[in-house]
Amino acid sequence: MNWTNNLTLLLKIAYPIVQAPMLGVTSPAMVAAVSNLGGLGSLPVGGLSPEKTKELIRQTKALTNKPFAVNLFAHEIPDIDKETALQMQSFLADFALKNHLNAEQADINTLRFYSYKEQIQVLLDEAIPIVSFTFGILNEDSIQRLKHKGVVLIGTATSVKEARLLAKKNIDIITAQGIEAGGHRGTFIHNEPLPQVGSISLIPQIVDNVKIPVLASGGINDGRTIKAAFILGAAGVQIGTAFIASHESQTIEAHKTALANSKDTDTALTRAFSGRWARGLRNRFMEELEKTGLTIPDYPIQNTLTTALRISAQHHNNREFTNLWAGQSASKTVRQSSAEIFTQLIKDTERLG
Amino acid sequence: MNWTNNLTLLLKIAYPIVQAPMLGVTSPAMVAAVSNLGGLGSLPVGGLSPEKTKELIRQTKALTNKPFAVNLFAHEIPDIDKETALQMQSFLADFALKNHLNAEQADINTLRFYSYKEQIQVLLDEAIPIVSFTFGILNEDSIQRLKHKGVVLIGTATSVKEARLLAKKNIDIITAQGIEAGGHRGTFIHNEPLPQVGSISLIPQIVDNVKIPVLASGGINDGRTIKAAFILGAAGVQIGTAFIASHESQTIEAHKTALANSKDTDTALTRAFSGRWARGLRNRFMEELEKTGLTIPDYPIQNTLTTALRISAQHHNNREFTNLWAGQSASKTVRQSSAEIFTQLIKDTERLG
Repeated sequence: MNWTNNLTLLLKIAYPIVQAPMLGVTSPAMVAAVSNLGGLGSLPVGGLSPEKTKELIRQTKALTNKPFAVNLFAHEIPDIDKETALQMQSFLADFALKNHLNAEQADINTLRFYSYKEQIQVLLDEAIPIVSFTFGILNEDSIQRLKHKGVVLIGTATSVKEARLLAKKNIDIITAQGIEAGGHRGTFIHNEPLPQVGSISLIPQIVDNVKIPVLASGGINDGRTIKAAFILGAAGVQIGTAFIASHESQTIEAHKTALANSKDTDTALTRAFSGRWARGLRNRFMEELEKTGLTIPDYPIQNTLTTALRISAQHHNNREFTNLWAGQSASKTVRQSSAEIFTQLIKDTERLG
Repeated sequence: MNWTNNLTLLLKIAYPIVQAPMLGVTSPAMVAAVSNLGGLGSLPVGGLSPEKTKELIRQTKALTNKPFAVNLFAHEIPDIDKETALQMQSFLADFALKNHLNAEQADINTLRFYSYKEQIQVLLDEAIPIVSFTFGILNEDSIQRLKHKGVVLIGTATSVKEARLLAKKNIDIITAQGIEAGGHRGTFIHNEPLPQVGSISLIPQIVDNVKIPVLASGGINDGRTIKAAFILGAAGVQIGTAFIASHESQTIEAHKTALANSKDTDTALTRAFSGRWARGLRNRFMEELEKTGLTIPDYPIQNTLTTALRISAQHHNNREFTNLWAGQSASKTVRQSSAEIFTQLIKDTERLG
């Protein structure tokens, strides 16, 4: 089978297979492993400081000479509603104490949130060839500056409407995120019900409504699903969950084990961890916070408020109190190197002819 | 391309394409049109009386000599909680009055619900060759009686667990219903969260877990999606929404128009109309009932309670107060004959090679 197409030519890669950027999971070593084999690794830096962004890019460059994408979170920072935040902190402190985890709460008057706008210069300085983004559309200034340097831009859409908005802004490629996908929904139209369209419906409808290449994401984890995405009209695929249990993954052992033991119906959408809808394996924190009926502050506020609790749970390898992002095809994840996982995806697809 | 496979041989049909049984939409003429062209038409009789069941079967037989399936609802009838039912009737009466629709309410002491068990003898008498079912598993006695006569049985699963339960009962074929599907979810394990697995995740996982042929349903409406379902491991597909705007459809004009004007994100899951989760285009009845927070009686009680309102809305061709079932790929529905729609599906698939 011939893998070369408009997407591989545009991205200068051999295989139109993108390793999804997964903040907290993806390491520079994972990115490099996939890019070195001719796929496109994606380094997640959403919400990080310019310094940290630069450090991670340098670490990745030390491991590969091939192109990789850097992934930004393109949301605007909301104002904090202090009353809501304090109520949440009170719940989190009690909850952490009860479960013998770090109950310390940040001072909500001094929280610092980084915008992607602070990261653009680093990406330009580091001559990053491909920038992907989610949670919004980069502002006009950022798009212009990146495009001026020939950077290829990849935006994320969870509906036809979002895809059309991205195409109108001259974004080069669209990642169509089906409801099966693990982790955060890329949704950025917020005054409408959350789009929850399955890949088999979403991919062809987005393909029919934009003229640029589409990457399918959500539920893709083997040759069959890669092949199906191509037939649905995608020019490539983005794969996340399949890499979560890899040797290069930064997640905890309990997360890797939970994935391998999971069933098709074990994930749910939740705002509990970050204030943004995301798909993960159900656990006690999700269930208990949702039961309270408390208002959950918007992303990234809730994300920051729950950080201490999540890190503390991770230190204890405790799956009940940290986010276990996972897509609906999580049950097939394997504990191998990222290179082995990537090679297997290629072989499995080629086997189908 | 060669359409013959284990499924077509088992069902004695030319194309492994099943027209989905859609109560209130599918007519004998629709069933016959699809079966006459070598697909499998499905006649919905869920919840109907034995007399009505027989009448519809006879009408269909008058239009085709080819095999068609008869579709049953395999749920158990729940007890009525009178207080909940009366509260719902009070809301419905007010709501209907306010909207100039029939506000008459049934006497909840005399409601009559038919069980599929009352229909089995009719199916045997009429020598129906294929019986499909949803909302549960037929009881042992029904399975034995049908199997004894060589009837092929098709069960509906919305998760791997449900598929395995069906396979264990020696059901012949499984319809894997992805979250994209329009109309009622076939879910029958009720003490767990509603399965909401997208087709691209669900189909391969069910195929990997049972040894019998799998029909993919949900989001399938053209050559690309049919082909994708085969690659994902399905032996055939079941297609519903694509036939809703057909000439043979029994639904109202407003429903047909709404489908053609719909977007990928316009549907939602609701229990408002029937007491069972189903996917349809959002409208005022769904939104207003859900806002009340009232307890919705289980299927088929709520279904019966809302019947007068829905029929009244249908008489006025009013899309706001009756169920507008639709899958997530509804935007491509066309107003043609069922035969034209079916022929186009075949051609479009063959075009892809």
